[in-house]
Amino acid sequence: MSADSNHHPQGSTTGDRGPRSLPLDRFNAFSDGVFAIAITLLVLEIAVPPEDVPLLAALRELWPEFLGYYISFAFIGGIWITHSGVTKLMKRGDPAAYALNLVLLLFVGLLPFTTTLMVTRLGGEDEGVAALLYGVDLLLASLVLSALIVYLAREPALLVDNIAEGTLGRVTRQRWASIGLNVVGIALALVAPQVAVALYLVVSTMLLIIPLLGLRRHRRESRAA
Amino acid sequence: MSADSNHHPQGSTTGDRGPRSLPLDRFNAFSDGVFAIAITLLVLEIAVPPEDVPLLAALRELWPEFLGYYISFAFIGGIWITHSGVTKLMKRGDPAAYALNLVLLLFVGLLPFTTTLMVTRLGGEDEGVAALLYGVDLLLASLVLSALIVYLAREPALLVDNIAEGTLGRVTRQRWASIGLNVVGIALALVAPQVAVALYLVVSTMLLIIPLLGLRRHRRESRAA
Amino acid sequence: MSADSNHHPQGSTTGDRGPRSLPLDRFNAFSDGVFAIAITLLVLEIAVPPEDVPLLAALRELWPEFLGYYISFAFIGGIWITHSGVTKLMKRGDPAAYALNLVLLLFVGLLPFTTTLMVTRLGGEDEGVAALLYGVDLLLASLVLSALIVYLAREPALLVDNIAEGTLGRVTRQRWASIGLNVVGIALALVAPQVAVALYLVVSTMLLIIPLLGLRRHRRESRAA
Amino acid sequence: MSADSNHHPQGSTTGDRGPRSLPLDRFNAFSDGVFAIAITLLVLEIAVPPEDVPLLAALRELWPEFLGYYISFAFIGGIWITHSGVTKLMKRGDPAAYALNLVLLLFVGLLPFTTTLMVTRLGGEDEGVAALLYGVDLLLASLVLSALIVYLAREPALLVDNIAEGTLGRVTRQRWASIGLNVVGIALALVAPQVAVALYLVVSTMLLIIPLLGLRRHRRESRAA
Repeated sequence: MSADSNHHPQGSTTGDRGPRSLPLDRFNAFSDGVFAIAITLLVLEIAVPPEDVPLLAALRELWPEFLGYYISFAFIGGIWITHSGVTKLMKRGDPAAYALNLVLLLFVGLLPFTTTLMVTRLGGEDEGVAALLYGVDLLLASLVLSALIVYLAREPALLVDNIAEGTLGRVTRQRWASIGLNVVGIALALVAPQVAVALYLVVSTMLLIIPLLGLRRHRRESRAA
Repeated sequence: MSADSNHHPQGSTTGDRGPRSLPLDRFNAFSDGVFAIAITLLVLEIAVPPEDVPLLAALRELWPEFLGYYISFAFIGGIWITHSGVTKLMKRGDPAAYALNLVLLLFVGLLPFTTTLMVTRLGGEDEGVAALLYGVDLLLASLVLSALIVYLAREPALLVDNIAEGTLGRVTRQRWASIGLNVVGIALALVAPQVAVALYLVVSTMLLIIPLLGLRRHRRESRAA
Repeated sequence: MSADSNHHPQGSTTGDRGPRSLPLDRFNAFSDGVFAIAITLLVLEIAVPPEDVPLLAALRELWPEFLGYYISFAFIGGIWITHSGVTKLMKRGDPAAYALNLVLLLFVGLLPFTTTLMVTRLGGEDEGVAALLYGVDLLLASLVLSALIVYLAREPALLVDNIAEGTLGRVTRQRWASIGLNVVGIALALVAPQVAVALYLVVSTMLLIIPLLGLRRHRRESRAA
Repeated sequence: MSADSNHHPQGSTTGDRGPRSLPLDRFNAFSDGVFAIAITLLVLEIAVPPEDVPLLAALRELWPEFLGYYISFAFIGGIWITHSGVTKLMKRGDPAAYALNLVLLLFVGLLPFTTTLMVTRLGGEDEGVAALLYGVDLLLASLVLSALIVYLAREPALLVDNIAEGTLGRVTRQRWASIGLNVVGIALALVAPQVAVALYLVVSTMLLIIPLLGLRRHRRESRAA
């Protein structure tokens, strides 16, 4: 309605300036914007306790909110790292890559909502459903990111070179581990919701820790060489 | 008052560094920022249900909010895709392009408000007026985007080459279809508001789907060639 | 405390990679981010009317909020246009330019607050004080922007070439008109607050209109030449 | 879960396009986004006083909120300046730099929350705990920023040249002064909270003033030379 999809049925040009080509810098800047805003909005979900409540007691009761802030910050950050690793292999976008990216960001943009849902229900009657919804939101974002990567791997015209194609294939295969853990979290959510949340905590922490560990090994290898 | 328009009555230079020239990277970065924020603020309009309400029942009642999130995410995303396709043909901006862009973003920035208005009134007495206002906001954004494209098509000094001029003319003509659907939505809003919302849903979904379909055909063509 | 100012007393290098040099792309990206967020937060200040209030009546009562949205959108947009026109003449930043820019953004960041203050008090007892505070916030932003421009004009090492120096001097002089109108608005605020608001409305509209008018003349000139 | 860490145990390539390499532009754009949003969200913590309260009296009572806005704006701005000065020495990122940066931004993203906590409790029973938490948040951000700098100084493959390594070492040593002041603030928080807040005020002001003073000396030196 207010926009068309820049779709040209007659167009078959694949050059960088062809009608189907869309710029990579806009793709990246818009994505970075949404990632940054979603990650920063998370803090708005932690309500500042009213002034007449003793502070330490109030903060103790806010622990689920802090947990949610931490977990979702790490997950969105992890998606952002993967996304950056993928776009460095691209030289331009096209309407399909843009549209897949929008669907990815749609699910990322919901995370502040599903995070708050999960942590405010923790320990309550509906904690299972809430932990399930959080896991499903995460899984959908993850699957769309994989779809984007698979799509790019099949469109050499969008990539910087032929090696990029193989690298993307490898990234896609490695992602099955994290998608598998995500499915386990969803399965646990209904039978043992707090175990599911603990799993989210462990996996999100791994997303921040592994890059640091990986690097120490890398440095040992460099010294050995 | 707090700013002038960088307007130089005596200036007639059209070079890239002339007084009327404004940089394209700032034009893009600011636009991407506003698009990203408007699209991410949409989630703040979905109120997290209070803890004492059964979760599934509460979520069922929130369906209009989710619908609004989806529709406006897709519309703003569609405007962003078109905007990116247009700016890839530019080599620089000028005060008029900057000002038109600001007016476009003014209407985009209102969409989180008009979206919430439309979905919270859905099924109520004023649903017609609310659906109308949403359609009008969308139409104004769409018309200003077309005005920006028409303006650019007439200013070769802002474009990368002569082919860009023709491409912009084609984009403008293709946009009449989406503007027409938008007008139909507005006309329906007062007589059959829920049909208008359904139309918004269909059109916004098309904005995400068409780029993906278009691509499959494109690939078949590539193979055939 | 949590950061130092990257200040090196012993440093006197002025090369692009010297210790005092700071990158222009970060300067621009951060500024565009704050401008974009401040301009988009404005819409959050328009409260969606509750569902049991007739919509049209509720919207009529919201006219001051829409007015504030429009005026501040145009003012922030105008500052952004000037800021872009200035940074296109820069080749890099330094700690002083970064610090001046931060103070500018501090006052821009307050505009959503002072805007809401002004429009919610309109017609009430304190409308004069509120219109005054709005004008003062705008004036401080404007003066710091001028200070940044004056500073840059005296630091050729930060500029792309010698012509830039002269251009910045001209921009500074032209800005006195808008600063003068701003002072008139502040003076009017206490004696005739609604006239002050009307002046803000006229000036902010001019910020959007002048670039478009200026361009028509420019095109006539081009044809004549 | 929803993302992997782009971690390749078998990878030991250090080239710019190797599997461990991550782009600098995404690193910067995302960081600028989070800094810009955190700094602009601060204004949302200043509640607009209700319309039936006399304005000047209401604003007088809001002075702690304005103080918090100012202090945190300056601290986040100072971190941003240091961060920009560091990334100008980088030519690319890697998963560890990305992960350290995420942890830095996690603590920066909490500042709007801890700021409001500190200023709303000022003068109350819990002002000590609140000032302590603010100082701890700031200290953690500061230490992680130092960790990032130390890490970069040891990874020449990420830097533009060999001089960058030495510059980063110097920056790290200079940062101990600000970290020391931060620790003093934390120590004071429990015994004399208002002195701690006054110290935050002085240090944050220095972050904005020193770059400007430093520059005047620099100019005198230039003239003398």
